[in-house]
Order: sequence, then C-alpha cells, then structure tokens
Amino acid sequence: MKVAIIGVGLIGGSLALALKNEGFANTVIGVDHSPENLKKATELGIIDRSAELSEAVHESDLILVTVPVNIIKTLLPVILDLVNKNQVVMEMGSTKQEILNHVNDHPNRGRLIASHPMAGTEYSGPEAAIADLFSGRNMVFCDVTKSDHDAFELAETVCEKLKMNPIFMHAKEHDLHTAYVSHISHISSFALALTVLEKERSQGRIFELAGGGFASTVRLAKSSAETWVPIFQQNQSNLLEVLEEHIKQLQQMRDVLRKEDYDMMFKLIKQSNKIKRIIK
Amino acid sequence: MKVAIIGVGLIGGSLALALKNEGFANTVIGVDHSPENLKKATELGIIDRSAELSEAVHESDLILVTVPVNIIKTLLPVILDLVNKNQVVMEMGSTKQEILNHVNDHPNRGRLIASHPMAGTEYSGPEAAIADLFSGRNMVFCDVTKSDHDAFELAETVCEKLKMNPIFMHAKEHDLHTAYVSHISHISSFALALTVLEKERSQGRIFELAGGGFASTVRLAKSSAETWVPIFQQNQSNLLEVLEEHIKQLQQMRDVLRKEDYDMMFKLIKQSNKIKRIIK
Repeated sequence: MKVAIIGVGLIGGSLALALKNEGFANTVIGVDHSPENLKKATELGIIDRSAELSEAVHESDLILVTVPVNIIKTLLPVILDLVNKNQVVMEMGSTKQEILNHVNDHPNRGRLIASHPMAGTEYSGPEAAIADLFSGRNMVFCDVTKSDHDAFELAETVCEKLKMNPIFMHAKEHDLHTAYVSHISHISSFALALTVLEKERSQGRIFELAGGGFASTVRLAKSSAETWVPIFQQNQSNLLEVLEEHIKQLQQMRDVLRKEDYDMMFKLIKQSNKIKRIIK
Repeated sequence: MKVAIIGVGLIGGSLALALKNEGFANTVIGVDHSPENLKKATELGIIDRSAELSEAVHESDLILVTVPVNIIKTLLPVILDLVNKNQVVMEMGSTKQEILNHVNDHPNRGRLIASHPMAGTEYSGPEAAIADLFSGRNMVFCDVTKSDHDAFELAETVCEKLKMNPIFMHAKEHDLHTAYVSHISHISSFALALTVLEKERSQGRIFELAGGGFASTVRLAKSSAETWVPIFQQNQSNLLEVLEEHIKQLQQMRDVLRKEDYDMMFKLIKQSNKIKRIIK
C-alpha cells in the first residue's frame, strides 16, 4: 500500500516507521513545509521520497495527516477535494470539533476518518520518531458514522497494525476529555516551568536540587509551541473550564496552607491519592 | 559498622540495602512504630533485626533518621541525648530550618549531620526500597559548620558509598529551593489529580484518554500524606510563596486564553521551553 504522510514529525514519522515495519506500507511519500525535515526523514529511512501535497495525495491509497491542528483545518478541505472513492484520509489531530465542523458538508467527508492516537513524547521532528510509539496505546475514532464503511475498515486495519486499542467517541466528548487528561497537563507544566525559571533569576542555584519528581511534572514544558498553541486555540472553551477548576483546587490548597489546617490538607492528599486507581 | 535505621520505609530501607551492598554496614538495626514494617523489612533482608529506639541508638556507630519530618523534629533531641562523641546521627528530612532550630543548642549538636538525599519515588514502605535509589543523585548537606569534623567525615564516606554528589547549603536556602523544585511539584500534582477525579464523577469515561503526559504530571499525587503534610507544615511560608506565584502564572495563562491572545501564549510556551536547559 502507498501511504502519504502529511507532516513528517514525531507522529507522522513514527506512523511511517511502524507501518513500514509491519509490511503494511510499501512506499511512504512525505510532505512537509520544511525541506530540512524531508531531508532528515529520507536519511532516517522514514520516507521513501518527498513530494508536493497534490502529487502525494494523487499517488497514495492512504493519506495520514499529522500536522498541527490549525494546519489540519486548512489542509483537510484541500485534501478531500483531491481524493476519490478508493482513497482514505486519516487526520490525527489532538482536537476534533472545529476540524470536523469545517469539513462536515464536504462531498468527500465519507473518506475521512477522524483519529487521535493517544501517544506522544515531549520531543518533535522526524528525529524524534520511534516505531513503537503507538503499541498498546488507545486510538480514538470520532464520529465514525460520518465515515464510509470501507474507509473505516481500512482505518481499523491501520489501528491493528499499530497494535492500538480502538475507542469510539463523539467529537464533543473527545475535546472535553482531552482538555482534562492531556491539555491541562501541558498548561500545568508550562506554568510550573515559568514559575521556577522566574525564581532562578534571583536564586541562581535553584535547579541543583531538582530531582525526578520535578522532572516528571515539568517534562511536558519541553513541548512545541507550534503544536500546542493551535490545540489550545481550538479547544479554548473546554480548556478554560478545566483551567478554572485547576486554579480553584490550587487556591483551596493555598487557603488550607495559609490557615494551617493540616487535617484538611491530609484529607485533600488522601483524596488525590485515589488517582492510584487510574495510573499504576 | 553498625547502623541504626530509624524509620524503615522507602528512604531508610533503600539506605540499608545500599550500605549493606557496599559492605559498609555489617549490621543494620531497624526501628519503626509499625511492627508490620519491621517484619517486612526483616523478611526482605533490609534489616538484620529490630529494636526499641534507645537500644538501637546505644548499639550503633551511625544512626540514620528517616521518619517523616514532624517525627524527626520530635525524635532528634531524644536521639542526641542518647549519643556519645563516637557516634554520628544523620537526619534525612526534606525540610531543614525548623528541625535544626529545634536542636541548635543541644550539647551534642556537633554529632548531627543535616542531610537531604535528593532521591525518592512516589511509593512508600520497606517494600518500595531499592538499593540503587541514590546512585548519581545529589546529597545536600546543610549548615555543616555546626557539625563536628569527624562526624562530617563519616557522612562524606556514606555519601561516597551511596555514589552521591555532595552539595552544601544553608538550611534557609535549602528550604526555599526545595519549595520551588520539589514541594510545589507535589502540590501541583495533588491539585491536578483532584481536578480530574472531580470531573470523573460527571464524565465517567474521562480516564480512557489518559496517556503518558497525564501520568507524568500526576505521578506525584500517589505520594503519602503522612510524609508530605509535615513537609508542607514545616516549609509553610516558602511553599505559600511559590504556590502564590504558580497560581499567578496559571491565572496569566487563563487570561491570555480568555482574551485569545495566541501570540502571547506562543511567547509564554517558548519561554517555558527554556526548562530544556535544566532537564534533559
């Protein structure tokens, strides 16, 4: 099968490697606005060759769209204009409602599968790509009733080849849930990094004491602004909701600490320990 | 050398294992308020036998105090009352000022080394102990001029046996810095876990989408209330300062998001990306 990867970064590159390893993709054609990314991806054996968007789409059976969500929104109508009834497009955005509303009435909407692989790292670019990024993780499919039956069958095969578990959700539900379990984690890390970097200016040695716990909570602050600003933009209202709630929780802890109500602090921590049920 | 471990949990247990492996500790005597911990620690080969506090102190050359910081504060004067000029006490608390002020005028203050190994996990109890927990990490020594020269020499040897890098700091500086690079990370994780657990009540499936990023930022929310509430209590004023600043950073992000000022959001994320310099 010929596969086009639109956006040869962490996600696109990892998909290419995994689908090649599985023997599912015989040829991978890469499209990227950065000639440097295309050069690196070719050198790393991630793509077989590069092409312009329209050429890559015309030549491919499956088109994987793995650019930032603002670019997905711009490119999807163009890509859907180019495809025929034998081709399938999977967009891999971290947000869904705005993207899907934008192509809802497109005559080729049926060829599109809205997919979100719940995997990633804080690194970006083709050199960050790893073949087993997706194995064992969840693949969220949104609003699949809007997709053609045969198109979804191909997407299911892709999911299987990637060793991912399919999950089904409405776009609206997806965007709310990702705000709570993914987007807010990034906001929290960015803000924590800013807090400590600011303090470093007056207390130079502050990072000498940074250990594994700190590294864990600020790891996501290394994430790319190009990827995350468009996600925050498209999921603004859900993210505002969860951010308000997170600030309230922190203010509650602040008040409890200020009042030195350590019995209450104990209760709050015991309550938060219930997260053990979710993350092992 | 005979070593007493006062508090046979994650830190105490890991110290015992490491110092035994190095051949530095020939006999390890465990003291703990929990008979169950002592039983487990004996079964796991962490301690050779258990004893009451005064007996363990009397029999040991080196006394390692690895209980929660409120208990350290209570026990240190008692332990210092018991030791002679050939014995050394290392307390391993995550806070320093309140503990050290409390024993500042003790006639045996010189036998005490204030130490803080910058290592840990979100797990607790003797079954969480691992021999290489400390290898390659920093050991902070505070106010060492208050310790006897020979006592500090022994502590340096312990540091070397644990393959740790010694760092020197005033207690005041230590408490401020740990508030910024350790204690706030815990507060942030506890609050994030509470935010999402609260939402789960109305949105049952929310955790299906939780991936590695979420796990990383809430990992510390599994930490023990028994350990952390006393740390927050003893470091209350520093922690309040950093918590206020962290809330301000989150409020700034909230305002930027509300105003949809995505150029500013881009700048904030680029700024926070500078954390790459610190954590690899």
